[in-house]
Amino acid sequence: MRVFGIDCGTEITGYGVVETDDSGRQQRLVMQAMGAIRLVKSKTTAERLEQVFGELSAELERWKPDAVAIEEVFYSVNAKSALKLGQVRGVALLAAAVRGIPVAEYAPLTIKSSVVGYGLAKKEQVQFMVARLLELAEPPQPADAADALAIAICHIHTAQTQEAQEAGRHSS
Amino acid sequence: MRVFGIDCGTEITGYGVVETDDSGRQQRLVMQAMGAIRLVKSKTTAERLEQVFGELSAELERWKPDAVAIEEVFYSVNAKSALKLGQVRGVALLAAAVRGIPVAEYAPLTIKSSVVGYGLAKKEQVQFMVARLLELAEPPQPADAADALAIAICHIHTAQTQEAQEAGRHSS
Repeated sequence: MRVFGIDCGTEITGYGVVETDDSGRQQRLVMQAMGAIRLVKSKTTAERLEQVFGELSAELERWKPDAVAIEEVFYSVNAKSALKLGQVRGVALLAAAVRGIPVAEYAPLTIKSSVVGYGLAKKEQVQFMVARLLELAEPPQPADAADALAIAICHIHTAQTQEAQEAGRHSS
Repeated sequence: MRVFGIDCGTEITGYGVVETDDSGRQQRLVMQAMGAIRLVKSKTTAERLEQVFGELSAELERWKPDAVAIEEVFYSVNAKSALKLGQVRGVALLAAAVRGIPVAEYAPLTIKSSVVGYGLAKKEQVQFMVARLLELAEPPQPADAADALAIAICHIHTAQTQEAQEAGRHSS
């Protein structure tokens, strides 16, 4: 399973590609790619959205993931920020939709629980665990890319838990 | 000049195409098209955004406007609504950006002032004046399409005022 995680932001949008490797005795999670799209401030909003859409589209074409995973939005931000974030999120969702790639959304609490085992974990703990789960020497930089990898890992964990539950249901 | 106005909404997104006709003694504004994209509630967010993007893209291809005009957003809505509206707005801006069509944004007050001559005009007054300026027998339906036409008219008025001011500056 290959999952493309996206961490949308109005200045930087992180992404990360995580794949499951079942060749060994124990399943491993492998990071295939990660990166961050830094929006050029001098551009207009429409041009910036075109940049996000273009770069995400290129990565989705390159990695052809089975699923896209994205964070559900944290509503404590103000309406102005929410609107700007929504615009970026809209084109990210569209980049997946036009390619027929299913999109899963996860709440921040769910992502932290899934990666660290604790919903109120700090940002650094999440980054530390992402590095550990993906067998990286150090936490991925920038933080936006690490967050995107965390979202992808959350999707893999969630999908595998659902599969296991369904298998249990069928065998009982 | 042909302008494509868009009134973004989380359920219905209206659009309207207004063109200037300089063939007579006095310039006329002519409505070329109008419509509303009604989002299918049973679809996922990503699918709905694909629907908005697809339908707007088809209309932009058909009408090839000189400019797209869109409302600046009213920040008094809550963050959750702002995020949803932002997603729709993001794909609408993208549909213009990928075609290289310039986008102009106008505040609600500016749109009302430009169409009715009064920034605090009621919705019905705006619709009445849109019908009158475009020589329509009655206010366009649905209201979202009428609002989109108002935004397009606002852009034409603004662009012509700017042109006149620049012409005055050059001749003085």
